[in-house]
Amino acid sequence: MGELRQNLITGDWVIVATERARRPHEFGGEKTKPALNVYEPSCPFCPGNESMTQTPSHVVGSGSSWNVRVVPNKYPALTREGERHRVVQGIRRSLAAVGVHEVVIENRRHDLSPGLMKREEVRDIITVYRDRYRAIREDERIEAIIIFRNHGEAAGTSLQHPHSQILATPMVPTQFRNRIQTAIRYFDEQGVCMFCATLKDELQEEVRLIYETEHFVAFIPYAALSPFHLWIFPRRHSSSFDEITNEEAEDLAENLRTVLAKIHRGLGDPDYNYTIRTIPTHIKHTDYFHWYLTIIPRITRTAGFELGSGMFINTSIPEESAKFLREIDVV
Amino acid sequence: MGELRQNLITGDWVIVATERARRPHEFGGEKTKPALNVYEPSCPFCPGNESMTQTPSHVVGSGSSWNVRVVPNKYPALTREGERHRVVQGIRRSLAAVGVHEVVIENRRHDLSPGLMKREEVRDIITVYRDRYRAIREDERIEAIIIFRNHGEAAGTSLQHPHSQILATPMVPTQFRNRIQTAIRYFDEQGVCMFCATLKDELQEEVRLIYETEHFVAFIPYAALSPFHLWIFPRRHSSSFDEITNEEAEDLAENLRTVLAKIHRGLGDPDYNYTIRTIPTHIKHTDYFHWYLTIIPRITRTAGFELGSGMFINTSIPEESAKFLREIDVV
Repeated sequence: MGELRQNLITGDWVIVATERARRPHEFGGEKTKPALNVYEPSCPFCPGNESMTQTPSHVVGSGSSWNVRVVPNKYPALTREGERHRVVQGIRRSLAAVGVHEVVIENRRHDLSPGLMKREEVRDIITVYRDRYRAIREDERIEAIIIFRNHGEAAGTSLQHPHSQILATPMVPTQFRNRIQTAIRYFDEQGVCMFCATLKDELQEEVRLIYETEHFVAFIPYAALSPFHLWIFPRRHSSSFDEITNEEAEDLAENLRTVLAKIHRGLGDPDYNYTIRTIPTHIKHTDYFHWYLTIIPRITRTAGFELGSGMFINTSIPEESAKFLREIDVV
Repeated sequence: MGELRQNLITGDWVIVATERARRPHEFGGEKTKPALNVYEPSCPFCPGNESMTQTPSHVVGSGSSWNVRVVPNKYPALTREGERHRVVQGIRRSLAAVGVHEVVIENRRHDLSPGLMKREEVRDIITVYRDRYRAIREDERIEAIIIFRNHGEAAGTSLQHPHSQILATPMVPTQFRNRIQTAIRYFDEQGVCMFCATLKDELQEEVRLIYETEHFVAFIPYAALSPFHLWIFPRRHSSSFDEITNEEAEDLAENLRTVLAKIHRGLGDPDYNYTIRTIPTHIKHTDYFHWYLTIIPRITRTAGFELGSGMFINTSIPEESAKFLREIDVV
């Protein structure tokens, strides 16, 4: 018989569907992505085409020999101009779409992704995330900053040049509020951080671990919502991503690129998203919240049950998936 | 400038992305679904192949001349045998996967879907949903019943014969709890049902209405999360779907098939999910909760931003989409 598991941190329930479970190697699709060129003349993110993007807010390197560039999104979901002003008209609640929407062009090369990059290249991306986070949070209209990466069409992108995005919103997403309330309640009841407790448990259990570095631990959560959905936790308790030190950024780069390389090699370069979950910008140094990075391979689809209940059916066993990725050799 | 809207009922925030908005007719993809045969010899749901499914729990019609059949799912996510028993081991929470997982074979014909069926055929499906709901809720281990339909591969199904599913869970999904709390808070503060207030507002505003029948109203919510995401509300306040009367079921059939026909014709038979949102089975006749049906065309994809924030970016304007569907003639 199968099992229902509840994720302590998100509150989500997942059906671990043993009746329909697939073995880890069965998820490795055939590699259908076309091989990319190192340089693509029409790509707005390739070197030489800098005039196709707006003025960068941040550059690693200089002039034409840049390594990472951050530019405004050409079709921004949120824009910098305007006041943050709530409107309540009867039952309708709205807000002008002020905020920040930037694109991080991660590398000069058109054909890479972080799982194929060198450690220093991934470190540059992470420190750019941090430096932009620090700069954007200075704007008092901003309440939350979401850093994310879409890899492949199933993950929501058609642009192949390696890039990620930063979206800064003028309100706290409802999901953040719910999770913070859960974290506070746990802290009140147990006296310890829920995330630290989870990390301690995973390190003791061992069966869901994927990769450990000095400052970070990658594992598949006990109640993973979908196959190979995984988390990378900082060992040090810290509420906000922008508290990451240079040394930790270097270590996260090593952890992240290794885990992404395992996914790339073990599962045939699947489409995936990753995102950094951190605390709203107006809160600092809490005992109850702990930032982390989550990677979601887009191997299965959500259907009516997931949309209708907020629950998930996972057709893989987290412990089996973790063992599979742990044993993929990428050195 | 764009607008951020908050859905009163779900609490979700959505960015109505005017900068990247598409006009309604631009969502109508080319019809890529192959034409289906009326009968498919290898289909387990086609007449004559009844032995390929397990013993039905419910049949409309009799013997080989059935119109609707309800059978156990061949690969059930939840199974009927076993005790409902919570396990808490340190921070890990689980439950045996007991419950019910059934398939509703909606019609004899392989090539139909509800948007192409006659009213009486859709009525039979709805009354079967209701009758199974009533039967399943007798099992005291069941706490929530989720009825849903997956249409097309992007919506999570590869089986083409028209069917929907019923999943009954031994716990209340966390999303349900959050929504109920929101509904109770609204009722406490305003003294009226949040859903009745929403319906009243939509009927007054008119701009997001799609189709009205005697007992039901179809509209695109003010803060629709994705293009053509829509709701069908009963006008009568009722917390649980299984309180629907025969007359109302007939009327819902007319409303649902018309709306699905508009989507089919106007958007080129897109993949979609629908689901019925109702109260947990152990709660009855509340003043604060109101069941409804939601239809989610799977036209766009969720990406890292949605996964990382629980927010959405809608690249359509709800008022424009509603007008477009309202004017699609399907009589």
